[in-house]
Amino acid sequence: MNVSARNCIKGTIMKITKGPVMAEIILDIGNGIQITSVITAHATESLGLKEGKEAYAVMKSSEVMIAVD
Amino acid sequence: MNVSARNCIKGTIMKITKGPVMAEIILDIGNGIQITSVITAHATESLGLKEGKEAYAVMKSSEVMIAVD
Amino acid sequence: MNVSARNCIKGTIMKITKGPVMAEIILDIGNGIQITSVITAHATESLGLKEGKEAYAVMKSSEVMIAVD
Amino acid sequence: MNVSARNCIKGTIMKITKGPVMAEIILDIGNGIQITSVITAHATESLGLKEGKEAYAVMKSSEVMIAVD
Amino acid sequence: MNVSARNCIKGTIMKITKGPVMAEIILDIGNGIQITSVITAHATESLGLKEGKEAYAVMKSSEVMIAVD
Amino acid sequence: MNVSARNCIKGTIMKITKGPVMAEIILDIGNGIQITSVITAHATESLGLKEGKEAYAVMKSSEVMIAVD
Repeated sequence: MNVSARNCIKGTIMKITKGPVMAEIILDIGNGIQITSVITAHATESLGLKEGKEAYAVMKSSEVMIAVD
Repeated sequence: MNVSARNCIKGTIMKITKGPVMAEIILDIGNGIQITSVITAHATESLGLKEGKEAYAVMKSSEVMIAVD
Repeated sequence: MNVSARNCIKGTIMKITKGPVMAEIILDIGNGIQITSVITAHATESLGLKEGKEAYAVMKSSEVMIAVD
Repeated sequence: MNVSARNCIKGTIMKITKGPVMAEIILDIGNGIQITSVITAHATESLGLKEGKEAYAVMKSSEVMIAVD
Repeated sequence: MNVSARNCIKGTIMKITKGPVMAEIILDIGNGIQITSVITAHATESLGLKEGKEAYAVMKSSEVMIAVD
Repeated sequence: MNVSARNCIKGTIMKITKGPVMAEIILDIGNGIQITSVITAHATESLGLKEGKEAYAVMKSSEVMIAVD
C-alpha cells in the first residue's frame, strides 16, 4: 500500500516501552539520530515490533514543523 | 525555548513552495534523506526561511507512525 | 508496507480540489458517508489520484476524536 | 457546537481500554468497519463513554491521509 | 455535540486569509493573546466564519506540546 | 530555537498525571482558562516539568480547529 505521507525514514528499533494503551518506540535512523514515535500498544503487537528489527518512521508533512536557531 | 517534541533533525532547506496560506518546505537531512514539511506561509516569512539555509524538522512523537515491510 | 495507523477505510474518490501546495480529496466510503482529506498537491500527483478511482482514508488513532450528542 | 472538522461518522462503542492517562475507544460504524480512537481517560469519563453507546468519530481533514493499492 | 477535545477557548475572529484549499483564521482570545488556526476553505464557508464574529479554538490534547524557557 | 508553530501561550502547570508512556499536563493560562496537553512521560522528565512551574502550551496552526455556537 502506497500512502500519501511524504516522509518515510528507515531505521532499527532500539527500545519499546509499552503501557496499557500506548507504546513508545525509539528508532535509530543512523548518523546518531533517533526518532521517537508513540503508537497504540495494539499496533505494536499487530506489526510484531521488536527491539533490533528494521522499521520505518512515517510522518504526514502537515505534522512536521520547522525550527531555526 | 525547550519544546516537549522529542524529534528535532538538522538539515538544509532544498525547496520552498509557497501558496497563499500554506508553504511546503523540503529539507535535506543528509544520507540522501529528505523531509517534507507543510507550515503556514506566515511562519515561513517570520522565520526567514530561504533555500540553502540550515533548519530543523521538529515532530511531536504522537505524530510519528511506524511501518514495517 | 504495513503501517501502524489503525484506521484504513476503502472508498472512491469523488472530488479533488488542488491548490498550489495542498489538495482536498473527498472520498465516498459508501452508506452515504464521505471522508474529506487534505494532503499535499505533490502527494496527489505522486499517488496518481483521480476522481472515480478507488483509494483508502488512513487515520492514526491519536488523531481521531470521539463526540456524543 | 458546530466544529470545523469535516469528518463525523456515527457508530457504536465496541470496546474501551483505559490506562492511567489515555484510553483506546473502538467504534463500529457498520458494514464491518471499525474506527480506533485514542483520547484521554479524562475525556472518556467526562463524555460518559460506555460500551454499547452511540458515539461519533470526528477527524480534522488535515489528519486524514490517502493510500492506494 | 460534545467533543472529546479537552481544549475549547472563546475568542473573536480578527482575520481570515483564504486560499483555494485552506484558510488561516486568527482568533483574539483576550489579554493580547492570538491563536492561529488553519482549516479548509470549505469549513470556513460552511461555518459562516467572518471577521468580528465570535468563535472557539478547539484543540485535541495530544496535539498540544509543552515548552519551557 | 524558534519554531514554526504559530501558537505559544504562557501559563502555570496545575497538575501532572503520569502514566508509563504518556503524561497529561494541565496548564492554567489565566482568566480561568486551562489547557490540557498530552506529551510523553520522557518529555515531562527531560523538561523538568513540575506543578507550580511556568510553561508554555505550543500548538501548530494546522492542529487547531474552529467551532461556532
